[in-house]
Amino acid sequence: MKVGFVGLGQMGRGMAANLLRGGHQVTVFNRSADKAQELAREGASVAAQVRDACTGDVVITMLANDTAVNDVVFAEHGVLAGLRPGAIHVSMSTISIALAERMTEAHAQAHQQFVSAPVFGRPDAAAAAKLVIVAGGPTETIKGLEPVFSVMGQATLLVSERPRDASLVKIGGNFMIASAMQAMGEAVALVRKAGVAPQTFIDVMTSTIFNAPIYRNYGALIASGRFSPAGFAAPLGYKDVGLALQASEALRVPMPLASLLHDRLLRLLAEGGESLDWSAIAVLSAADAGLPRADGGD
Amino acid sequence: MKVGFVGLGQMGRGMAANLLRGGHQVTVFNRSADKAQELAREGASVAAQVRDACTGDVVITMLANDTAVNDVVFAEHGVLAGLRPGAIHVSMSTISIALAERMTEAHAQAHQQFVSAPVFGRPDAAAAAKLVIVAGGPTETIKGLEPVFSVMGQATLLVSERPRDASLVKIGGNFMIASAMQAMGEAVALVRKAGVAPQTFIDVMTSTIFNAPIYRNYGALIASGRFSPAGFAAPLGYKDVGLALQASEALRVPMPLASLLHDRLLRLLAEGGESLDWSAIAVLSAADAGLPRADGGD
Amino acid sequence: MKVGFVGLGQMGRGMAANLLRGGHQVTVFNRSADKAQELAREGASVAAQVRDACTGDVVITMLANDTAVNDVVFAEHGVLAGLRPGAIHVSMSTISIALAERMTEAHAQAHQQFVSAPVFGRPDAAAAAKLVIVAGGPTETIKGLEPVFSVMGQATLLVSERPRDASLVKIGGNFMIASAMQAMGEAVALVRKAGVAPQTFIDVMTSTIFNAPIYRNYGALIASGRFSPAGFAAPLGYKDVGLALQASEALRVPMPLASLLHDRLLRLLAEGGESLDWSAIAVLSAADAGLPRADGGD
Amino acid sequence: MKVGFVGLGQMGRGMAANLLRGGHQVTVFNRSADKAQELAREGASVAAQVRDACTGDVVITMLANDTAVNDVVFAEHGVLAGLRPGAIHVSMSTISIALAERMTEAHAQAHQQFVSAPVFGRPDAAAAAKLVIVAGGPTETIKGLEPVFSVMGQATLLVSERPRDASLVKIGGNFMIASAMQAMGEAVALVRKAGVAPQTFIDVMTSTIFNAPIYRNYGALIASGRFSPAGFAAPLGYKDVGLALQASEALRVPMPLASLLHDRLLRLLAEGGESLDWSAIAVLSAADAGLPRADGGD
Repeated sequence: MKVGFVGLGQMGRGMAANLLRGGHQVTVFNRSADKAQELAREGASVAAQVRDACTGDVVITMLANDTAVNDVVFAEHGVLAGLRPGAIHVSMSTISIALAERMTEAHAQAHQQFVSAPVFGRPDAAAAAKLVIVAGGPTETIKGLEPVFSVMGQATLLVSERPRDASLVKIGGNFMIASAMQAMGEAVALVRKAGVAPQTFIDVMTSTIFNAPIYRNYGALIASGRFSPAGFAAPLGYKDVGLALQASEALRVPMPLASLLHDRLLRLLAEGGESLDWSAIAVLSAADAGLPRADGGD
Repeated sequence: MKVGFVGLGQMGRGMAANLLRGGHQVTVFNRSADKAQELAREGASVAAQVRDACTGDVVITMLANDTAVNDVVFAEHGVLAGLRPGAIHVSMSTISIALAERMTEAHAQAHQQFVSAPVFGRPDAAAAAKLVIVAGGPTETIKGLEPVFSVMGQATLLVSERPRDASLVKIGGNFMIASAMQAMGEAVALVRKAGVAPQTFIDVMTSTIFNAPIYRNYGALIASGRFSPAGFAAPLGYKDVGLALQASEALRVPMPLASLLHDRLLRLLAEGGESLDWSAIAVLSAADAGLPRADGGD
Repeated sequence: MKVGFVGLGQMGRGMAANLLRGGHQVTVFNRSADKAQELAREGASVAAQVRDACTGDVVITMLANDTAVNDVVFAEHGVLAGLRPGAIHVSMSTISIALAERMTEAHAQAHQQFVSAPVFGRPDAAAAAKLVIVAGGPTETIKGLEPVFSVMGQATLLVSERPRDASLVKIGGNFMIASAMQAMGEAVALVRKAGVAPQTFIDVMTSTIFNAPIYRNYGALIASGRFSPAGFAAPLGYKDVGLALQASEALRVPMPLASLLHDRLLRLLAEGGESLDWSAIAVLSAADAGLPRADGGD
Repeated sequence: MKVGFVGLGQMGRGMAANLLRGGHQVTVFNRSADKAQELAREGASVAAQVRDACTGDVVITMLANDTAVNDVVFAEHGVLAGLRPGAIHVSMSTISIALAERMTEAHAQAHQQFVSAPVFGRPDAAAAAKLVIVAGGPTETIKGLEPVFSVMGQATLLVSERPRDASLVKIGGNFMIASAMQAMGEAVALVRKAGVAPQTFIDVMTSTIFNAPIYRNYGALIASGRFSPAGFAAPLGYKDVGLALQASEALRVPMPLASLLHDRLLRLLAEGGESLDWSAIAVLSAADAGLPRADGGD
């Protein structure tokens, strides 16, 4: 298929590269052009403006947050302006349900198609085509995207005909990940202060009832206290828990655990943790207990 | 081996039966004698008093809470009084670290051996010999117990030479389970109010990043809203989160998420949820959002 | 002085009437004209558009929230367009620090003066000229407003030369009020379940260490369980705690107690408490304890 | 009256001195005898054992916590053993409702009278006879104690015929004080990070809607960041919030704000704040915001 790809960050680069390897004809756009040049060496065309990446059947956007998506889609020479009637915009960023609804409406009015298809997986999963894609939108449209999705992910899960539902499921999932990190952070601080090795505790948990990647991967980070370089940086995690709270306000669903996570991530940022992985909220539980840093730093 | 078994509740029955099936010579004791009679039909001897179950190499206690263990161990005709020097008391209940420490000391003074070996798994896992055993105590002693542990569980994980560390790891694990339930409860309320089927959300999560039994089993309960009959009743869950908070106080490790869980479980009890499964804390998130009960009841 | 007054809600009506009684020449504007007519009978001129209320020395805005203030100030025929150079806009609404900053800048560019002067006090205090005015802006300007402030309030407290600081102090104060209500709500539920009369508890507190109006007034509401009619409705309280959280995010100051209050007020709204006084969050503490409603309703 | 006084800590010393000044015949007991000698110089008799202070009409106990009261009352030569039938034990310590109930029962069986009469006020108020006494017990008995109470306090408030209700009201009051401190701590961190002087904020609040001693006194401490020497040390505050949580568990009344306070105080202790005033929980809000200490220390 003829695919446009907007946004070549840590995630987007791997995804676009997999589209090229999968035989698609890919035109990329990125705000800073050097990243686009890397992809050009692998066979991509490079668009000078967003709308130049929107001339095919499908354009995928993979950007950091609502503001970036908003700019790219609604700008004068943006996605909405560039896409021909009938063509599909697949938004794979984690965005607010409000923005998903706004795009659904705007694309419908422009006789374009819209799918929200956020992903679970970190940059290494994006590079290895192991993402899990959570899709919302017209069933037929999503089925038609299978050649595109199948080269980027290990599975595509259809949530609902409403794009915003996929965004909401992704937001709920990220909230659950942050919850698991907070739980591990508190439990590890507890056993560590008692003299039990954090990794022993994590091993017991992840070899049995918590035998899932989230616990193994983040558990290892938390046990070792190594939160740098970040796979998913604290400001992004803060943003995602913020999306859960926005949805909770919009839908009137109190979420005290989400509020707790928000406060922890905000504290992590206020204390200077901008560049750390979001699992570094575990550091706060150790600090609250008067424990030194697990990695021996200061 | 010649094994005593004290406590034939939902968990203990299956465990004692598996010991018999494993070829051990088992003497059982239970406060209400009828449950002991069932085991007698499968080949167990029945003790009239706790101390009569303590005449072999090993006695296992599997009871509901600290008070029950305390009574059975320190009573005039209890475990401490009944066990010969060198014999082993294996406490498999989930107990406080304070009680684990107290028993460690008392058995040492009586020249007896003590192992704390709480388990992960619900009654069905106990019946199917699928428990995960978390053991703390002298390594040699625990290795010697392999014939006993192997017929009750799928794995024995050695945590530390200190019995109380195994209790602490178990307490930390149960806290993590409750955290996962609270996270699912809030997320399910969120997506449900938006019109997404709870089971769809749980399926997305458990087929991918949360592919672990805890999420599958409790997720199904939470999605369906069926919390009765209880696999693990709310008062037991409340007790276990209470053990985490006790440990948090004793070790001076603030655990705000544990406090949140404590308040939710206390509310569940105050509102009349005594007989429900502890995952029914999810009901509270739905109620807070003004949603009707998921199972259509009232 | 020649004063414009925009916003004749429960608070604004009393304030505008006091300006008239104080001898000022007042032109009023309100979206629904009938409320303006009431003031006309007391001597006010009625403006057809916002800008017609901006022809004097001072225009006061007293509106429900950021959106309303924003509309009135930045609209084509709004305050910014209507005010002559050198004239003063006094914003007496409780607004976000972001909006206070935006107005400070916009008025400066238009060579107009800007003061943020939110008030403490409910509608009865507004009617009785007993408001406490918290003012931020150039000291000379605020001093010059004394003839206006003195007929509406019992005291004017100068916070800072920056208008947004007054807004922040007001937001902090409302957060503290909500905190006091939550504390009373939990304490009253506790003593009430033990059989102590709520009013006895409140009397002990307010006759001694909590001898302040906030505790006496809200304590009486909470003890009696009468939250209707609302003096300050739940949605307004929710908005104000939301302003505290917005400021907390903007300034990176984690506020776990504000998060708790947010969740309680959101729950009150989700459960149908839109029309109740915001002190009705106390109902939730009673409900969590399994207590019937204090006022005997259902 | 002939009065015994047990417990000459920071509070007890001033109270016993006021009894002497009020013309009562006072026999004092303290674990470390030197403090008793000070009172002897003011006219007190010194008891060698607790029971020797129990030979009069009334014995007052004023001790740090449940354990201390328990020891003094139920010991072999303690209050219960020493008091003659009909004589009165007035417990003025802040104790658990469980202990209040236990003493009520024990004294009744010994045909002695029991009153729980905890106080509000810090050591300076105790010295100045400005305490507020909250009394629970038989009305006639409490009336008869007026000559004793009136020389120690500014007011005696009768809560209920049940002694434990007075303890509960006191516990509820201390919880409310801690809540006010937490609210001030968060609000002060917020305005301080915005550049507003903490004392300006506290002045605005305490000159108007929060015009109560609790806010003035603790507000000044929080604004200045001076928490040492402690008027009421963090471990005592932690104990008192713990009493609220114990009551909340016993009565099944979830108290999320009390849980929050518990976690903050526990963190203060874990981080080394043993010797600070309990209002130092405000330090944590500042630290969470990345602010340096308010008093310039480190």
